[in-house]
Amino acid sequence: MPLSNRIETAMGAALASTLADTAPARLTSALTYATQPGGARIRPTILLSVALACGDDRPELSDAAAAALELMHCASLVHDDLPCFDDADLRRGKPSVHKAYSEPLAVLTGDSLIILAIETVARTAALDPARASDMLLTLTRCTGAPYGICAGQGWESEPQIDLSAYHKAKTAALFVAATQMGAISAGHDPEPWYDLGALIGEAFQVADDLRDALLDETTLGKPVEQDHLHGRPNAVALLGVKGAYERLSDILAGAIASIPSCPGEAALAEVVRLKAKSIMPKMPAGHRA
Amino acid sequence: MPLSNRIETAMGAALASTLADTAPARLTSALTYATQPGGARIRPTILLSVALACGDDRPELSDAAAAALELMHCASLVHDDLPCFDDADLRRGKPSVHKAYSEPLAVLTGDSLIILAIETVARTAALDPARASDMLLTLTRCTGAPYGICAGQGWESEPQIDLSAYHKAKTAALFVAATQMGAISAGHDPEPWYDLGALIGEAFQVADDLRDALLDETTLGKPVEQDHLHGRPNAVALLGVKGAYERLSDILAGAIASIPSCPGEAALAEVVRLKAKSIMPKMPAGHRA
Repeated sequence: MPLSNRIETAMGAALASTLADTAPARLTSALTYATQPGGARIRPTILLSVALACGDDRPELSDAAAAALELMHCASLVHDDLPCFDDADLRRGKPSVHKAYSEPLAVLTGDSLIILAIETVARTAALDPARASDMLLTLTRCTGAPYGICAGQGWESEPQIDLSAYHKAKTAALFVAATQMGAISAGHDPEPWYDLGALIGEAFQVADDLRDALLDETTLGKPVEQDHLHGRPNAVALLGVKGAYERLSDILAGAIASIPSCPGEAALAEVVRLKAKSIMPKMPAGHRA
Repeated sequence: MPLSNRIETAMGAALASTLADTAPARLTSALTYATQPGGARIRPTILLSVALACGDDRPELSDAAAAALELMHCASLVHDDLPCFDDADLRRGKPSVHKAYSEPLAVLTGDSLIILAIETVARTAALDPARASDMLLTLTRCTGAPYGICAGQGWESEPQIDLSAYHKAKTAALFVAATQMGAISAGHDPEPWYDLGALIGEAFQVADDLRDALLDETTLGKPVEQDHLHGRPNAVALLGVKGAYERLSDILAGAIASIPSCPGEAALAEVVRLKAKSIMPKMPAGHRA
């Protein structure tokens, strides 16, 4: 089964567990709305790719972990879109949850998806209590405080930002969860898989900085300068557009080099290369060497 | 150790795990602010009382479960106080989290406390994987959708409310979590403990209805009539003040009668009687028989 089918099937099964005759229908509808159709499902794809590279001997575990990770990611998007954060009217080409439903339902949708994500992993304890428990503690560490995505978002309310801690928590944490939960689901030690997740996360961050900077160039019609970059240091501000592209290539080479020795090492390197290509913004003509 | 010490010690240990040199300080401060000093800690007190009635052979498990349940309750209060729900400026005599910190930090505080609650239970898998997993699935069922407190709050966004499902999810669910997690933590079957939790939850609901109605009488200087009761059927609207008191007594008698046979049955009945007394609003002179 292609990975995308595995992910959608596992997410569908998780969401089905929130339905009941005596459930509030608008909330359960919002849970589906917030998660389908998805974006690139890049985190669960990496998770399953790592699981496969490690032998994937218990696909029920890796499927549940993949669904849980994507549900958690969707929860973070719903809350990030709220008026008190990004105040985003649109998400994945349709109205954001608070626009389509209401702000109360958006808060509850995020909360419910967090709990559903956890529940989805917790249910696998019946199959393998040790792996389930390790996957759960990885998921909570990568999502809560002090090191997870909640902490990452929390840095934006600080008077002084620790940029390294901020990027690690806000962007890299869920990729670390992807590589480590993938390894655990297949009975492998998660420790050697930390670097791959952290480096993919860093690559995402630099790619985002590049996209923002190039968008500013296009929409503002001006070349990128430090003061256009929302006043916050980032890869483009520090290294320029060309330098940021070089940095991105270096990080991705490091990510591939960091893949621990495992049965599916070569195939996984290919997946990382393909995903890297898909996130790399096209370099504008003016910046080519 | 008195139960209140056990609860505060366990909550303190859970909160300490959110501190780190590289954590966003305002968020971690808000986590403590939202949870200390506490209210009556009635849910974890019931949980520990049930654990003790069942022998409490693994107090590390019951302590973790008690802390987790109270953290989850605190998370729900922080989100319920948000401007888009109750818009409450005060909570437990001090500014609510969004007033004291900010709305973004209040959303993140609730999210982080949900994850911390789960993590606190998940860590006990190292001591007893089977009980940890049963406690976790009880906690997620009683907090998410379709039957937990998220669903309970979700009913308030429905055009038609299923009142029985609403009260069960919004109020009773966390009391069911209290009795069932208490039993599981001590190695007992949770099933026979459902009724006690559900009935205590129902008693809380009727006591709340009475408090609201009596407050209306005091502040409005008018006797309680159905149309004063915020347009939503409740025990006082259905039964009158005296009838609601009688109903409350009946529910509490039923709760005590429902206690499953266990070593500490009599002591637990006494705890329920005392807690019941503490939530029972004083009947005003005009309504006495």
